[in-house]
Amino acid sequence: MSIKTISSREVYRNRWTSVREDVIERSSGTRGIYGVVDKEPACIIVPVEHTPSGDSVWLVRQYRYTVGGTYYELPQGGWEQNIGADPTVMAHGELAEETGLRAGSMKRLASLWIGYGVMRQLHHVYLAENLSQGEVARDAEEEDMTVHRVAVLEFESMLLDGRVMDNCSAAAWAIYRVWRERNPT
Amino acid sequence: MSIKTISSREVYRNRWTSVREDVIERSSGTRGIYGVVDKEPACIIVPVEHTPSGDSVWLVRQYRYTVGGTYYELPQGGWEQNIGADPTVMAHGELAEETGLRAGSMKRLASLWIGYGVMRQLHHVYLAENLSQGEVARDAEEEDMTVHRVAVLEFESMLLDGRVMDNCSAAAWAIYRVWRERNPT
Repeated sequence: MSIKTISSREVYRNRWTSVREDVIERSSGTRGIYGVVDKEPACIIVPVEHTPSGDSVWLVRQYRYTVGGTYYELPQGGWEQNIGADPTVMAHGELAEETGLRAGSMKRLASLWIGYGVMRQLHHVYLAENLSQGEVARDAEEEDMTVHRVAVLEFESMLLDGRVMDNCSAAAWAIYRVWRERNPT
Repeated sequence: MSIKTISSREVYRNRWTSVREDVIERSSGTRGIYGVVDKEPACIIVPVEHTPSGDSVWLVRQYRYTVGGTYYELPQGGWEQNIGADPTVMAHGELAEETGLRAGSMKRLASLWIGYGVMRQLHHVYLAENLSQGEVARDAEEEDMTVHRVAVLEFESMLLDGRVMDNCSAAAWAIYRVWRERNPT
């Protein structure tokens, strides 16, 4: 089915987000409206360390104003103005800013849409390996952020018990798990 | 860190979504704005069939206007007015509406936030088992939807090759995979 856009008007914009309301027409001829939240692409990073005693993953923990809670999550983010930005450069930048980690290897595993029922935002999922520690340089919004290295089994417990409630982190983990099974270390 | 709300104004509303711009103050005393997209809770269902030749999962495929593409995804959705709705009733309803499937067992595995960088919407992840076929009853927005039963390995290929690009479906799959390893059939 193609859905035609009959008209479109912007109803809100700030530095990070814009919202439009489109009048649409379905192939059946019926019309309706669609509210769409537009955001620039972002990236999420799965930073994995392989050790003889098992794999671990680096997480950050921060207060999320939108939902009023503090959660563990995978490092992620986007730039305000990133039209044309190389997503791999963005992934290196976000990882370093939030955790201080430098990745010797940064591989894009997949790209997903975030909440495409209402949003248009692409999320690039990266695997970061060969990690070394450097300086942290967080945004003002991230001033409360803490960094944690946890065993994979512990991270997976967090997904089930509510310490991680970020669907972007869960989605990135699915991509990593499936990819890893097909590309063993 | 607590972030205080100094003021809040609604900037947009339709039947499914509302958007507000809040003036906020961080614990450091700096002020800023936060655009927040509010949506009622929704649910996503992982409908799994266990057969001697391997497990399979039921997917739907539809055009997603927000991103202008047609994708496979897990059955999902919410009700326009669901304040106080029982999410398990919602999960049975969404699965039946979109696929015609009736689930003898419907178990909530986790609840996640969808895109909490900008949105406040809770997503309940359900495992549906003991499936039987019934009638389909789709919304007007879903009139192009098709239903597909695919082997688990094929679904996981779809996550890596772009046929599935829905981060909610990927997230639900992570929850299911992790839960299943701890609760074998």
